[in-house]
Amino acid sequence: MEIFHAYRVEGDRVFLDAGETAHCVRVKRHREGDAVEVIDGSGDLLRCRLDSVGPGEASATVLSREAGFGAHPYRLTVGVCPTKNADRYEWFVEKATEIGVDVLATLFADRSERRVMKGERLRKLALSAAKQSLKGAIPSIPEPVTVKDFIRSASSGALKLIACCYGDRIPLTQALAGAAADREIIILIGPEGDFSPQELKMADEAGFVAVSLGDSRLRTETAALASVCAVYFNFCK
Amino acid sequence: MEIFHAYRVEGDRVFLDAGETAHCVRVKRHREGDAVEVIDGSGDLLRCRLDSVGPGEASATVLSREAGFGAHPYRLTVGVCPTKNADRYEWFVEKATEIGVDVLATLFADRSERRVMKGERLRKLALSAAKQSLKGAIPSIPEPVTVKDFIRSASSGALKLIACCYGDRIPLTQALAGAAADREIIILIGPEGDFSPQELKMADEAGFVAVSLGDSRLRTETAALASVCAVYFNFCK
Repeated sequence: MEIFHAYRVEGDRVFLDAGETAHCVRVKRHREGDAVEVIDGSGDLLRCRLDSVGPGEASATVLSREAGFGAHPYRLTVGVCPTKNADRYEWFVEKATEIGVDVLATLFADRSERRVMKGERLRKLALSAAKQSLKGAIPSIPEPVTVKDFIRSASSGALKLIACCYGDRIPLTQALAGAAADREIIILIGPEGDFSPQELKMADEAGFVAVSLGDSRLRTETAALASVCAVYFNFCK
Repeated sequence: MEIFHAYRVEGDRVFLDAGETAHCVRVKRHREGDAVEVIDGSGDLLRCRLDSVGPGEASATVLSREAGFGAHPYRLTVGVCPTKNADRYEWFVEKATEIGVDVLATLFADRSERRVMKGERLRKLALSAAKQSLKGAIPSIPEPVTVKDFIRSASSGALKLIACCYGDRIPLTQALAGAAADREIIILIGPEGDFSPQELKMADEAGFVAVSLGDSRLRTETAALASVCAVYFNFCK
């Protein structure tokens, strides 16, 4: 099964950009009138008929919709401080999308060394991973903010967790046990060198629960992906 | 904390090879008489005193040992069919080592496209990841075998699981629940295109339990790493 991404939707018509059109026509050899399956990132799978194929764009008519295509039974935001090596962060974005995540927030911590992250590239990777793993929803990747700003604006109704390597903590699995599937879960993963005491204090005051990811010493991106797996297996039983 | 790897042990003397010696002396600027921490892959951390530093080798005397350094509280063998792209498999070896695994077996399945895997390179990656994540034990990476040969020789006392995408299956988390920490766990992860019916039948007859990794469509290396995470979080509560 191959799905295409619509960069634009107008009523019951969807449009593929030049790259998707080329892939659809040259690689998959689709012609006008063919049935194609399209996602627009909303979560639905759109079953379409290819109407017209131009050099830089193709359009298709939506015939039916399958809601919640490839959806996971939880709502998860992971806030991760970028790794020094961008490849490692990109790898995390791909893998987290495959397993299932809703928001991938890049956070700059007091102890972050890297303070630049190309959102556009990460969004392309997430889109590509969502298509490959047959998911109708593409994780949202907002512009980076500081850990402190993220904590200030975190939803009050969410189950808010912050993974750290020192201080009083409970195991992540324990914090997740019994969480309602429709409650948003937020997990923060710190940089190499961990969150600062100020960040942890602020998180505590904002209702974040400090959690431990077990005894293994994990790199940032490994800790982030392990957290996504813990949530996934907590709900996919 | 920086640990070095001893390629050779003779009684209470350990030896670093040329690469480790160069790193120890040029990068970390250690001199004869310095305290250094060494692993030999047995699981112990060896606290040593650097005795002599030659151009191609260094030797040190073991002063004390810490058993089970960075050990995980389970025994896990993961058998994985190689990915088409070797990078993806190498990434899995690194991440699985960080999280905690004992044996990484490369398996060739009926439907495997790739039938070559450079064990030496994988062993170097596992060693490097074990050092980085402060583990005394380095996962063993045996020479590849076929899925069928692996099934034939799998330990009869182990909890044997085979992840697949079709047929009767129970969730992985359910299969793991209640497993004793000292019982070996074996998990097999198939190639793109999954295991063949013959392989699944043979596994079933050999006492393997077919398990599901949930509804997400995971690449081979993602499924393999998610399985390692499921075992890790099952025991690290």
